[in-house]
Amino acid sequence: MKVILTQEKLAKALAIVGRIASPRTTLPILSNILIKAEENQLILSATNLEVAITETISAKVEKNGVITVPAKLLMEFVANLPKVNVTLTLADDKLSVVAGNYKSTINTMDAEDYPEIPDIVAKNKITIPADLFKKSVANTSLVASSDTTRPVLTGVYIYVFEGDLYFVATDGYRLAEKKVMPYSDEISMIVPAATLNDVSRILGDDTKEIEIGFSDDQISFEIDDTVITSRLVSGNFINYRQLIPTKTDVKAVLSRSEFVRVVKVSELFARESAGSIVMTADSKKSLVNVHSIVSQIGENSNEIEATVSGDGTVTLNSKFLLDCLGQIEGENIKIQFSGKLAPILIVGENDKNYKHIIMPVKS
Amino acid sequence: MKVILTQEKLAKALAIVGRIASPRTTLPILSNILIKAEENQLILSATNLEVAITETISAKVEKNGVITVPAKLLMEFVANLPKVNVTLTLADDKLSVVAGNYKSTINTMDAEDYPEIPDIVAKNKITIPADLFKKSVANTSLVASSDTTRPVLTGVYIYVFEGDLYFVATDGYRLAEKKVMPYSDEISMIVPAATLNDVSRILGDDTKEIEIGFSDDQISFEIDDTVITSRLVSGNFINYRQLIPTKTDVKAVLSRSEFVRVVKVSELFARESAGSIVMTADSKKSLVNVHSIVSQIGENSNEIEATVSGDGTVTLNSKFLLDCLGQIEGENIKIQFSGKLAPILIVGENDKNYKHIIMPVKS
Repeated sequence: MKVILTQEKLAKALAIVGRIASPRTTLPILSNILIKAEENQLILSATNLEVAITETISAKVEKNGVITVPAKLLMEFVANLPKVNVTLTLADDKLSVVAGNYKSTINTMDAEDYPEIPDIVAKNKITIPADLFKKSVANTSLVASSDTTRPVLTGVYIYVFEGDLYFVATDGYRLAEKKVMPYSDEISMIVPAATLNDVSRILGDDTKEIEIGFSDDQISFEIDDTVITSRLVSGNFINYRQLIPTKTDVKAVLSRSEFVRVVKVSELFARESAGSIVMTADSKKSLVNVHSIVSQIGENSNEIEATVSGDGTVTLNSKFLLDCLGQIEGENIKIQFSGKLAPILIVGENDKNYKHIIMPVKS
Repeated sequence: MKVILTQEKLAKALAIVGRIASPRTTLPILSNILIKAEENQLILSATNLEVAITETISAKVEKNGVITVPAKLLMEFVANLPKVNVTLTLADDKLSVVAGNYKSTINTMDAEDYPEIPDIVAKNKITIPADLFKKSVANTSLVASSDTTRPVLTGVYIYVFEGDLYFVATDGYRLAEKKVMPYSDEISMIVPAATLNDVSRILGDDTKEIEIGFSDDQISFEIDDTVITSRLVSGNFINYRQLIPTKTDVKAVLSRSEFVRVVKVSELFARESAGSIVMTADSKKSLVNVHSIVSQIGENSNEIEATVSGDGTVTLNSKFLLDCLGQIEGENIKIQFSGKLAPILIVGENDKNYKHIIMPVKS
């Protein structure tokens, strides 16, 4: 192998691919990246056996070849080099990396031993604007579960319902549903939330759109020069639509930013009760009160003006509430609930596309 | 106690004082701050028994009083309040904190049980420009030791020598000396490096100067509304002047930013040797070579153009070298050394006021 390319190009590609390689693994070669030079292209790949990523960049290839080297070392080395041409040469099972007066020799592992990078045959493809994809992932993935004993809940359910594409996730305590965009083909799959977050992080600010392809058990994301593939989660997503309340006893519309402040303040006093705070809607006084349960350190009670119909009290987890408020957009939010046990629905006052549901804490 | 003041004032004072209060202590009251209201002043204090800090701010005092409350809780609570007036009222051993529609009651501990905040009688005072103080602390405190079995090395030696004020610190492996400014009075004390760093952090960007007062065993720092007091380290500082090389076999002048890059790159390959890198000066080729020792992951060798007199090789710790290079100012640095065992002197090419010495690693 002998390849020449600019430091900028190589550093950028390594920063994307190197992220997937993991040094904390029982299979040491997974901390390496696979480097392949052929036909004026340098192809860098890495996988953690769940997600694989491949970056294809143009380069001056003087001699084809393939090898693996430690991802972190090569990434950090190239990132620190001056902006000159870098020459990669494989000789005697070692990769020589030369840039101006900087010379390194990196020990390698055989490419034969590297796990196969899947090349999936998509039976279907969908293109989503990059911004919308990012927002939809953020809106939903934060409520996905990290409990691997219930794999279905660790994913985001991506499916089409009555002509619209939806992203949905739940951990059993809360649920988030995002109506993404009109789409007519049939889609139904559960994508690991971790994969979607990896893809979101890789999306640059100047990326316009992302192409998603999928087969029965795998998904691929194409972003500019990058291809990411991942397994899908097998199983059926829960029948969640019945959980979204349609009629509630209490409705309150209030300022989102003020509500965030009130919840943050109350949370400070709720550490002993694991973040439980009590929310009361008062239609006569036109206000919502948020208070913490009396504790060893003291107590707290805050009021916020609101347009309220119906009266009621519910106890809920402040962290879940702040997570939700961080995703909703617009000035005002609408909170709807019925009694102390039914799910609480929170939406942006003028946003019909994002629904967030939190189960109350029993009190 | 009943006091009224703006949220901004109170939040700013709490942010400064609260930093010293420590929740990880065997004496629970040390996680509290002491609040005293008297004569149109609110006085907030905290101590960790080494350093004490007092902030005096004007406030509308309707009733005098003194109490202690958990620092972190009050600090975070007030920081999250809207910018309105805050009323602190002590009743039934509880501190009520009210701001608009935000109401908290915080449990307290008796001020009688709080350790005394020292009020030192300075036998001498010195005023230093804030910027110069900050730089001098940064220049020296980073080489102070964290090994409390040799207390003298955990401090910065502040003293006057031949009409100049000096800051000096060493951990036995490296030494930094900063000539601060001309000063004629006699001064000789060792100040805990941790105290100096605390003071530096508190110094705002708009602080012009800092007044330092000291007695035989204590030091105080006055910055605007804030007074910080600390014990001094007892003992005599080592007689370090003899350690600074005056004549060396090798001298090399080279670009600081390029040298930082070269050392960072070499450090990546030096993990197995605990960061040891080898520096060679070559007067014929007019260059300095930095290379890592051959290791399991590979090896690295980089060259940098330099004005060199004399030839030689020395092994040194890359972290110590990068720490030093991060403190030196100006475009070029001058490195001087003699053989593999003598101290290495590094200075800015045109800066006679800051000297940094690193002991070589035996190789």
